[in-house]
Amino acid sequence: MDLVRVQREVERRLSPERFRHTLAVAETAASLAKRHGADEKKAVVAALLHDIAKEYPRNRLLKESLDFGIVLSDIELREEALIHGPLGAAIAEHEFGISDPDILAAIHFHTTGREGMSLLERIVFLADYIEPGRAFPGVDAVRDLAWTSLDKAIVLTLDQGLVYLIKRGKLIHPDAIAARNGLLLGLE
Amino acid sequence: MDLVRVQREVERRLSPERFRHTLAVAETAASLAKRHGADEKKAVVAALLHDIAKEYPRNRLLKESLDFGIVLSDIELREEALIHGPLGAAIAEHEFGISDPDILAAIHFHTTGREGMSLLERIVFLADYIEPGRAFPGVDAVRDLAWTSLDKAIVLTLDQGLVYLIKRGKLIHPDAIAARNGLLLGLE
Repeated sequence: MDLVRVQREVERRLSPERFRHTLAVAETAASLAKRHGADEKKAVVAALLHDIAKEYPRNRLLKESLDFGIVLSDIELREEALIHGPLGAAIAEHEFGISDPDILAAIHFHTTGREGMSLLERIVFLADYIEPGRAFPGVDAVRDLAWTSLDKAIVLTLDQGLVYLIKRGKLIHPDAIAARNGLLLGLE
Repeated sequence: MDLVRVQREVERRLSPERFRHTLAVAETAASLAKRHGADEKKAVVAALLHDIAKEYPRNRLLKESLDFGIVLSDIELREEALIHGPLGAAIAEHEFGISDPDILAAIHFHTTGREGMSLLERIVFLADYIEPGRAFPGVDAVRDLAWTSLDKAIVLTLDQGLVYLIKRGKLIHPDAIAARNGLLLGLE
Protein backbone atom coordinates (compact mmCIF):
# COMPACT_ATOMS: atom_id res chain seq x y z
CA MET A 1 0.00 0.00 0.00
CA ASP A 2 1.83 3.02 -1.34
CA LEU A 3 0.59 6.21 0.35
CA VAL A 4 1.96 8.48 -2.38
CA ARG A 5 0.19 6.54 -5.12
CA VAL A 6 -3.07 6.48 -3.16
CA GLN A 7 -2.86 10.22 -2.55
CA ARG A 8 -2.07 10.96 -6.21
CA GLU A 9 -4.99 8.86 -7.45
CA VAL A 10 -7.35 10.43 -4.91
CA GLU A 11 -6.26 13.89 -6.08
CA ARG A 12 -6.94 12.89 -9.67
CA ARG A 13 -10.49 11.81 -8.81
CA LEU A 14 -11.64 14.64 -6.52
CA SER A 15 -12.34 18.34 -6.98
CA PRO A 16 -9.65 20.63 -5.53
CA GLU A 17 -11.90 21.62 -2.62
CA ARG A 18 -12.75 18.01 -1.74
CA PHE A 19 -9.09 17.05 -2.03
CA ARG A 20 -8.14 19.88 0.35
CA HIS A 21 -10.70 18.55 2.86
CA THR A 22 -9.38 15.02 2.37
CA LEU A 23 -5.77 16.02 3.10
CA ALA A 24 -6.92 17.93 6.19
CA VAL A 25 -8.81 14.87 7.43
CA ALA A 26 -5.70 12.75 6.83
CA GLU A 27 -3.54 15.14 8.86
CA THR A 28 -6.09 15.31 11.66
CA ALA A 29 -6.52 11.53 11.66
CA ALA A 30 -2.74 11.09 11.91
CA SER A 31 -2.62 13.45 14.91
CA LEU A 32 -5.51 11.70 16.64
CA ALA A 33 -3.93 8.30 15.92
CA LYS A 34 -0.69 9.46 17.50
CA ARG A 35 -2.55 10.86 20.50
CA HIS A 36 -4.68 7.78 21.09
CA GLY A 37 -2.23 5.03 20.11
CA ALA A 38 -3.73 3.95 16.80
CA ASP A 39 -1.87 3.00 13.61
CA GLU A 40 -1.08 6.33 11.93
CA LYS A 41 -0.56 4.90 8.46
CA LYS A 42 -3.90 3.10 8.50
CA ALA A 43 -5.58 6.27 9.72
CA VAL A 44 -4.08 8.23 6.81
CA VAL A 45 -5.08 5.64 4.21
CA ALA A 46 -8.67 5.50 5.49
CA ALA A 47 -8.85 9.31 5.62
CA LEU A 48 -7.46 9.70 2.09
CA LEU A 49 -10.13 7.38 0.75
CA HIS A 50 -13.10 8.28 2.97
CA ASP A 51 -14.76 10.65 0.47
CA ILE A 52 -13.64 8.93 -2.73
CA ALA A 53 -17.29 8.50 -3.81
CA LYS A 54 -18.63 11.72 -2.28
CA GLU A 55 -18.84 13.63 -5.54
CA TYR A 56 -20.56 10.93 -7.53
CA PRO A 57 -23.94 11.95 -8.94
CA ARG A 58 -26.96 9.93 -7.79
CA ASN A 59 -27.09 7.65 -10.81
CA ARG A 60 -23.43 6.66 -10.36
CA LEU A 61 -23.90 6.08 -6.61
CA LEU A 62 -26.78 3.72 -7.35
CA LYS A 63 -25.16 2.00 -10.34
CA GLU A 64 -21.83 1.30 -8.60
CA SER A 65 -23.55 0.22 -5.38
CA LEU A 66 -25.50 -2.30 -7.43
CA ASP A 67 -22.32 -3.43 -9.21
CA PHE A 68 -20.55 -3.98 -5.88
CA GLY A 69 -23.53 -5.83 -4.39
CA ILE A 70 -24.21 -3.14 -1.77
CA VAL A 71 -27.81 -3.42 -0.57
CA LEU A 72 -29.23 0.06 -0.03
CA SER A 73 -32.00 0.65 2.50
CA ASP A 74 -34.99 2.96 1.98
CA ILE A 75 -33.16 5.46 4.15
CA GLU A 76 -30.02 5.40 2.00
CA LEU A 77 -32.07 5.65 -1.18
CA ARG A 78 -33.77 8.78 0.19
CA GLU A 79 -30.67 10.38 1.74
CA GLU A 80 -28.04 9.72 -0.90
CA ALA A 81 -25.35 11.42 1.22
CA LEU A 82 -25.39 8.15 3.19
CA ILE A 83 -24.25 6.07 0.22
CA HIS A 84 -20.72 7.37 -0.30
CA GLY A 85 -19.40 5.69 2.86
CA PRO A 86 -20.36 2.09 2.01
CA LEU A 87 -19.55 2.66 -1.66
CA GLY A 88 -16.22 4.31 -0.79
CA ALA A 89 -15.23 1.20 1.17
CA ALA A 90 -16.03 -1.00 -1.84
CA ILE A 91 -14.00 1.27 -4.12
CA ALA A 92 -11.09 1.25 -1.66
CA GLU A 93 -11.15 -2.54 -1.68
CA HIS A 94 -11.67 -3.23 -5.36
CA GLU A 95 -10.01 -0.25 -7.08
CA PHE A 96 -7.26 0.60 -4.57
CA GLY A 97 -6.55 -2.93 -3.37
CA ILE A 98 -7.11 -2.18 0.32
CA SER A 99 -7.80 -5.42 2.17
CA ASP A 100 -7.47 -4.33 5.82
CA PRO A 101 -10.99 -4.72 7.26
CA ASP A 102 -10.45 -1.98 9.84
CA ILE A 103 -9.53 0.58 7.17
CA LEU A 104 -12.51 -0.50 5.08
CA ALA A 105 -14.85 -0.20 8.08
CA ALA A 106 -13.48 3.26 8.90
CA ILE A 107 -14.38 4.38 5.38
CA HIS A 108 -17.72 2.56 5.38
CA PHE A 109 -19.03 4.06 8.63
CA HIS A 110 -17.44 7.50 8.62
CA THR A 111 -20.76 9.30 8.06
CA THR A 112 -23.08 7.48 10.48
CA GLY A 113 -20.82 5.77 12.97
CA ARG A 114 -22.03 2.42 14.26
CA GLU A 115 -22.23 0.49 17.51
CA GLY A 116 -18.88 -0.80 18.68
CA MET A 117 -16.63 1.31 16.46
CA SER A 118 -12.95 0.36 16.48
CA LEU A 119 -10.31 2.89 17.53
CA LEU A 120 -9.50 3.53 13.85
CA GLU A 121 -13.18 4.00 12.97
CA ARG A 122 -13.61 6.49 15.80
CA ILE A 123 -10.54 8.46 14.71
CA VAL A 124 -11.58 8.77 11.06
CA PHE A 125 -15.17 9.62 12.05
CA LEU A 126 -13.95 12.45 14.26
CA ALA A 127 -11.19 13.68 11.96
CA ASP A 128 -13.79 14.19 9.23
CA TYR A 129 -15.84 16.35 11.61
CA ILE A 130 -13.08 18.45 13.17
CA GLU A 131 -10.46 18.97 10.46
CA PRO A 132 -9.28 22.62 10.57
CA GLY A 133 -11.42 23.71 7.62
CA ARG A 134 -14.65 22.89 9.47
CA ALA A 135 -16.22 26.04 10.92
CA PHE A 136 -19.77 25.18 12.00
CA PRO A 137 -21.16 26.01 15.44
CA GLY A 138 -20.08 23.54 18.10
CA VAL A 139 -17.04 22.15 16.30
CA ASP A 140 -14.55 23.68 18.75
CA ALA A 141 -16.14 21.86 21.67
CA VAL A 142 -15.68 18.59 19.77
CA ARG A 143 -12.06 19.50 18.92
CA ASP A 144 -11.29 20.04 22.58
CA LEU A 145 -12.90 16.76 23.64
CA ALA A 146 -11.21 14.76 20.88
CA TRP A 147 -7.84 15.04 22.58
CA THR A 148 -9.07 13.72 25.91
CA SER A 149 -11.98 11.39 25.14
CA LEU A 150 -12.76 10.08 21.66
CA ASP A 151 -16.02 8.65 22.95
CA LYS A 152 -17.29 11.87 24.51
CA ALA A 153 -16.24 13.75 21.37
CA ILE A 154 -18.19 11.32 19.18
CA VAL A 155 -21.31 11.55 21.34
CA LEU A 156 -21.19 15.33 20.99
CA THR A 157 -20.66 15.00 17.22
CA LEU A 158 -23.63 12.66 16.93
CA ASP A 159 -25.77 14.95 19.11
CA GLN A 160 -24.96 17.94 16.90
CA GLY A 161 -25.59 15.89 13.77
CA LEU A 162 -28.92 14.56 15.04
CA VAL A 163 -30.19 18.04 15.92
CA TYR A 164 -29.13 19.19 12.44
CA LEU A 165 -31.08 16.36 10.80
CA ILE A 166 -34.15 16.87 13.02
CA LYS A 167 -34.30 20.61 12.26
CA ARG A 168 -34.25 19.85 8.54
CA GLY A 169 -36.76 16.98 8.61
CA LYS A 170 -34.14 14.51 7.38
CA LEU A 171 -34.11 10.77 8.01
CA ILE A 172 -31.82 9.44 10.74
CA HIS A 173 -29.70 6.37 10.06
CA PRO A 174 -30.19 3.74 12.78
CA ASP A 175 -26.42 3.15 12.91
CA ALA A 176 -25.96 6.68 14.29
CA ILE A 177 -28.42 5.96 17.09
CA ALA A 178 -26.81 2.61 17.85
CA ALA A 179 -23.40 4.31 17.94
CA ARG A 180 -24.62 6.96 20.38
CA ASN A 181 -26.49 4.52 22.63
CA GLY A 182 -23.51 2.18 22.75
CA LEU A 183 -21.11 4.97 23.65
CA LEU A 184 -23.42 6.40 26.35
CA LEU A 185 -23.88 2.95 27.86
CA GLY A 186 -20.11 2.58 27.96
CA LEU A 187 -19.34 6.06 29.29
CA GLU A 188 -21.43 6.09 32.43
CA MET B 1 -64.70 -5.41 28.41
CA ASP B 2 -66.48 -3.16 30.91
CA LEU B 3 -65.18 0.41 30.65
CA VAL B 4 -66.51 1.39 34.07
CA ARG B 5 -64.80 -1.51 35.79
CA VAL B 6 -61.53 -0.85 33.94
CA GLN B 7 -61.65 2.82 34.91
CA ARG B 8 -62.45 2.03 38.56
CA GLU B 9 -59.56 -0.45 38.82
CA VAL B 10 -57.17 1.97 37.12
CA GLU B 11 -58.19 4.68 39.60
CA ARG B 12 -57.54 2.29 42.47
CA ARG B 13 -54.02 1.58 41.23
CA LEU B 14 -52.81 5.08 40.29
CA SER B 15 -52.02 8.24 42.21
CA PRO B 16 -54.68 10.99 41.85
CA GLU B 17 -52.40 13.04 39.57
CA ARG B 18 -51.61 10.08 37.30
CA PHE B 19 -55.29 9.15 37.18
CA ARG B 20 -56.17 12.72 36.16
CA HIS B 21 -53.64 12.49 33.33
CA THR B 22 -55.04 9.09 32.34
CA LEU B 23 -58.62 10.38 32.10
CA ALA B 24 -57.42 13.35 30.05
CA VAL B 25 -55.59 11.02 27.67
CA ALA B 26 -58.75 8.92 27.36
CA GLU B 27 -60.86 11.96 26.49
CA THR B 28 -58.29 13.22 24.00
CA ALA B 29 -57.94 9.77 22.46
CA ALA B 30 -61.73 9.54 22.07
CA SER B 31 -61.80 12.91 20.29
CA LEU B 32 -58.94 11.96 17.99
CA ALA B 33 -60.58 8.60 17.27
CA LYS B 34 -63.81 10.35 16.29
CA ARG B 35 -61.91 12.85 14.14
CA HIS B 36 -59.84 10.23 12.33
CA GLY B 37 -62.35 7.37 12.12
CA ALA B 38 -60.88 4.99 14.69
CA ASP B 39 -62.75 2.85 17.23
CA GLU B 40 -63.49 5.22 20.13
CA LYS B 41 -64.03 2.52 22.73
CA LYS B 42 -60.73 0.82 21.91
CA ALA B 43 -59.00 4.19 22.08
CA VAL B 44 -60.46 4.82 25.56
CA VAL B 45 -59.50 1.36 26.86
CA ALA B 46 -55.93 1.70 25.62
CA ALA B 47 -55.68 5.21 27.05
CA LEU B 48 -57.06 4.16 30.44
CA LEU B 49 -54.43 1.44 30.69
CA HIS B 50 -51.45 3.11 29.02
CA ASP B 51 -49.75 4.23 32.26
CA ILE B 52 -50.90 1.37 34.50
CA ALA B 53 -47.27 0.47 35.29
CA LYS B 54 -45.87 4.00 35.18
CA GLU B 55 -45.63 4.41 38.95
CA TYR B 56 -43.97 1.09 39.66
CA PRO B 57 -40.58 1.40 41.35
CA ARG B 58 -37.61 -0.04 39.47
CA ASN B 59 -37.53 -3.36 41.29
CA ARG B 60 -41.20 -4.01 40.51
CA LEU B 61 -40.73 -3.01 36.84
CA LEU B 62 -37.90 -5.53 36.54
CA LYS B 63 -39.57 -8.30 38.56
CA GLU B 64 -42.89 -8.16 36.71
CA SER B 65 -41.19 -7.85 33.32
CA LEU B 66 -39.30 -11.03 34.15
CA ASP B 67 -42.51 -12.72 35.33
CA PHE B 68 -44.27 -11.84 32.06
CA GLY B 69 -41.33 -12.98 29.95
CA ILE B 70 -40.58 -9.47 28.65
CA VAL B 71 -37.00 -9.30 27.41
CA LEU B 72 -35.50 -5.93 28.33
CA SER B 73 -32.72 -4.42 26.23
CA ASP B 74 -29.69 -2.57 27.62
CA ILE B 75 -31.46 0.64 26.69
CA GLU B 76 -34.60 -0.24 28.63
CA LEU B 77 -32.55 -1.36 31.63
CA ARG B 78 -30.80 2.02 31.65
CA GLU B 79 -33.86 4.18 30.92
CA GLU B 80 -36.51 2.56 33.06
CA ALA B 81 -39.17 5.01 31.83
CA LEU B 82 -39.17 2.84 28.71
CA ILE B 83 -40.36 -0.26 30.58
CA HIS B 84 -43.87 0.78 31.61
CA GLY B 85 -45.21 0.57 28.04
CA PRO B 86 -44.32 -3.07 27.34
CA LEU B 87 -45.12 -4.03 30.93
CA GLY B 88 -48.42 -2.12 30.83
CA ALA B 89 -49.47 -4.12 27.77
CA ALA B 90 -48.73 -7.38 29.61
CA ILE B 91 -50.72 -6.20 32.64
CA ALA B 92 -53.62 -5.16 30.40
CA GLU B 93 -53.62 -8.61 28.86
CA HIS B 94 -53.13 -10.77 31.95
CA GLU B 95 -54.73 -8.70 34.73
CA PHE B 96 -57.47 -6.86 32.80
CA GLY B 97 -58.23 -9.58 30.27
CA ILE B 98 -57.64 -7.40 27.22
CA SER B 99 -57.00 -9.61 24.19
CA ASP B 100 -57.31 -7.12 21.33
CA PRO B 101 -53.81 -6.97 19.83
CA ASP B 102 -54.30 -3.41 18.57
CA ILE B 103 -55.15 -2.14 22.07
CA LEU B 104 -52.19 -4.02 23.52
CA ALA B 105 -49.85 -2.57 20.89
CA ALA B 106 -51.15 0.95 21.56
CA ILE B 107 -50.23 0.51 25.23
CA HIS B 108 -46.93 -1.21 24.47
CA PHE B 109 -45.58 1.45 22.09
CA HIS B 110 -47.11 4.64 23.52
CA THR B 111 -43.75 5.97 24.75
CA THR B 112 -41.47 5.25 21.79
CA GLY B 113 -43.77 4.74 18.82
CA ARG B 114 -42.62 2.20 16.27
CA GLU B 115 -42.43 1.74 12.52
CA GLY B 116 -45.82 1.12 10.93
CA MET B 117 -48.03 2.19 13.86
CA SER B 118 -51.72 1.40 13.44
CA LEU B 119 -54.31 4.19 13.54
CA LEU B 120 -55.12 3.30 17.17
CA GLU B 121 -51.44 3.28 18.14
CA ARG B 122 -50.94 6.71 16.58
CA ILE B 123 -53.97 8.12 18.39
CA VAL B 124 -52.93 6.89 21.84
CA PHE B 125 -49.33 8.00 21.27
CA LEU B 126 -50.48 11.53 20.41
CA ALA B 127 -53.24 11.76 23.04
CA ASP B 128 -50.62 11.05 25.71
CA TYR B 129 -48.53 13.96 24.43
CA ILE B 130 -51.24 16.58 23.85
CA GLU B 131 -53.87 16.00 26.58
CA PRO B 132 -54.96 19.39 27.96
CA GLY B 133 -52.79 19.12 31.10
CA ARG B 134 -49.60 19.09 29.05
CA ALA B 135 -47.95 22.49 28.99
CA PHE B 136 -44.41 22.09 27.64
CA PRO B 137 -42.99 24.24 24.82
CA GLY B 138 -44.13 23.08 21.40
CA VAL B 139 -47.19 21.14 22.48
CA ASP B 140 -49.64 23.59 20.90
CA ALA B 141 -48.09 23.08 17.48
CA VAL B 142 -48.61 19.32 17.89
CA ARG B 143 -52.22 19.88 19.05
CA ASP B 144 -52.98 21.88 15.92
CA LEU B 145 -51.42 19.29 13.61
CA ALA B 146 -53.16 16.36 15.33
CA TRP B 147 -56.54 17.38 13.90
CA THR B 148 -55.31 17.51 10.33
CA SER B 149 -52.45 15.02 10.06
CA LEU B 150 -51.70 12.40 12.69
CA ASP B 151 -48.48 11.55 10.90
CA LYS B 152 -47.13 15.10 10.80
CA ALA B 153 -48.14 15.55 14.44
CA ILE B 154 -46.25 12.40 15.43
CA VAL B 155 -43.12 13.44 13.53
CA LEU B 156 -43.17 16.76 15.41
CA THR B 157 -43.72 14.93 18.70
CA LEU B 158 -40.80 12.61 18.01
CA ASP B 159 -38.62 15.56 16.94
CA GLN B 160 -39.35 17.39 20.18
CA GLY B 161 -38.78 14.22 22.19
CA LEU B 162 -35.48 13.48 20.48
CA VAL B 163 -34.14 16.97 21.09
CA TYR B 164 -35.19 16.62 24.74
CA LEU B 165 -33.29 13.34 25.08
CA ILE B 166 -30.23 14.65 23.25
CA LYS B 167 -29.99 17.74 25.47
CA ARG B 168 -30.08 15.52 28.55
CA GLY B 169 -27.63 12.89 27.31
CA LYS B 170 -30.30 10.18 27.44
CA LEU B 171 -30.40 7.03 25.35
CA ILE B 172 -32.70 6.99 22.30
CA HIS B 173 -34.89 3.94 21.69
CA PRO B 174 -34.43 2.63 18.12
CA ASP B 175 -38.21 2.23 17.76
CA ALA B 176 -38.60 6.02 17.96
CA ILE B 177 -36.14 6.47 15.10
CA ALA B 178 -37.82 3.74 13.05
CA ALA B 179 -41.20 5.40 13.67
CA ARG B 180 -39.91 8.78 12.53
CA ASN B 181 -38.08 7.44 9.47
CA GLY B 182 -41.12 5.41 8.40
CA LEU B 183 -43.46 8.38 8.73
CA LEU B 184 -41.11 10.74 6.85
CA LEU B 185 -40.70 8.19 4.06
CA GLY B 186 -44.49 7.97 3.81
CA LEU B 187 -45.16 11.72 4.04
CA GLU B 188 -43.04 12.98 1.20
